[in-house]
Amino acid sequence: MTDDSPPPPAAVLEATLYCQDLAAAEAFYAGVLGFDVVIRKPGRHVFFRVGATILLVFDPRASVQISPEAMFPVPPHGAEGPGHLCLAATDDEMTAWVARLAEAGHPVESDFRWPNGARSIYFRDPSGNSLEMAERRLWEG
Amino acid sequence: MTDDSPPPPAAVLEATLYCQDLAAAEAFYAGVLGFDVVIRKPGRHVFFRVGATILLVFDPRASVQISPEAMFPVPPHGAEGPGHLCLAATDDEMTAWVARLAEAGHPVESDFRWPNGARSIYFRDPSGNSLEMAERRLWEG
Repeated sequence: MTDDSPPPPAAVLEATLYCQDLAAAEAFYAGVLGFDVVIRKPGRHVFFRVGATILLVFDPRASVQISPEAMFPVPPHGAEGPGHLCLAATDDEMTAWVARLAEAGHPVESDFRWPNGARSIYFRDPSGNSLEMAERRLWEG
Repeated sequence: MTDDSPPPPAAVLEATLYCQDLAAAEAFYAGVLGFDVVIRKPGRHVFFRVGATILLVFDPRASVQISPEAMFPVPPHGAEGPGHLCLAATDDEMTAWVARLAEAGHPVESDFRWPNGARSIYFRDPSGNSLEMAERRLWEG
């Protein structure tokens, strides 16, 4: 930073994942993980509220193009291949999620503790994105 | 959700972007945006603290592989193409960022207000990821 820099942005307001099957994404993020849908535009995106952050899920085949019906000059973006997102959860919640995710057909593929004792579990969304739940203390101190 | 579901995860703990040039990513995210580096593993990743969230920046050519020296069973992931992340900022901060980003060689490519009056600005990181700053009220109410 230089002296004329504004303060660093205080928070992540939106995080993004890409899924080519948005209906499957909604069935997973709303139906299994329990997030509320904020906006749904079939064929283009579905957005979810995750606490103070919005999770944006785009079909990258649409988001890489400038929509002919776009009302605002939103720049294009869109990635292919498995992304990653980590959600905050407690140890007890993760134990319950291990069972619930297996029942929902998204079995946990990794479950371990980091050197500071914080637990993480990893699983996949319907598009193969690597999702993690971790205790907040993973990044504290 | 079914009756046996745990509560939805309360927050995004980590958001992810991919950059093939991690040194350029660090020069931008730490040197221009001002985020503190939490972990740096040359050739693989650099992580930044953004308020209560950790921004993970991976070289996808490394993160899609299971590292032979990995001490923990972290599943592989990695995407190609421009991703998206939105950071919280105030209107006045964005006005200052428009000047600072231009000076740093990352000119703002879009600057407008949404129907509820919230302002967004868009720019690119060194790998072409689409970054946004937006007022928190974009997603309130």
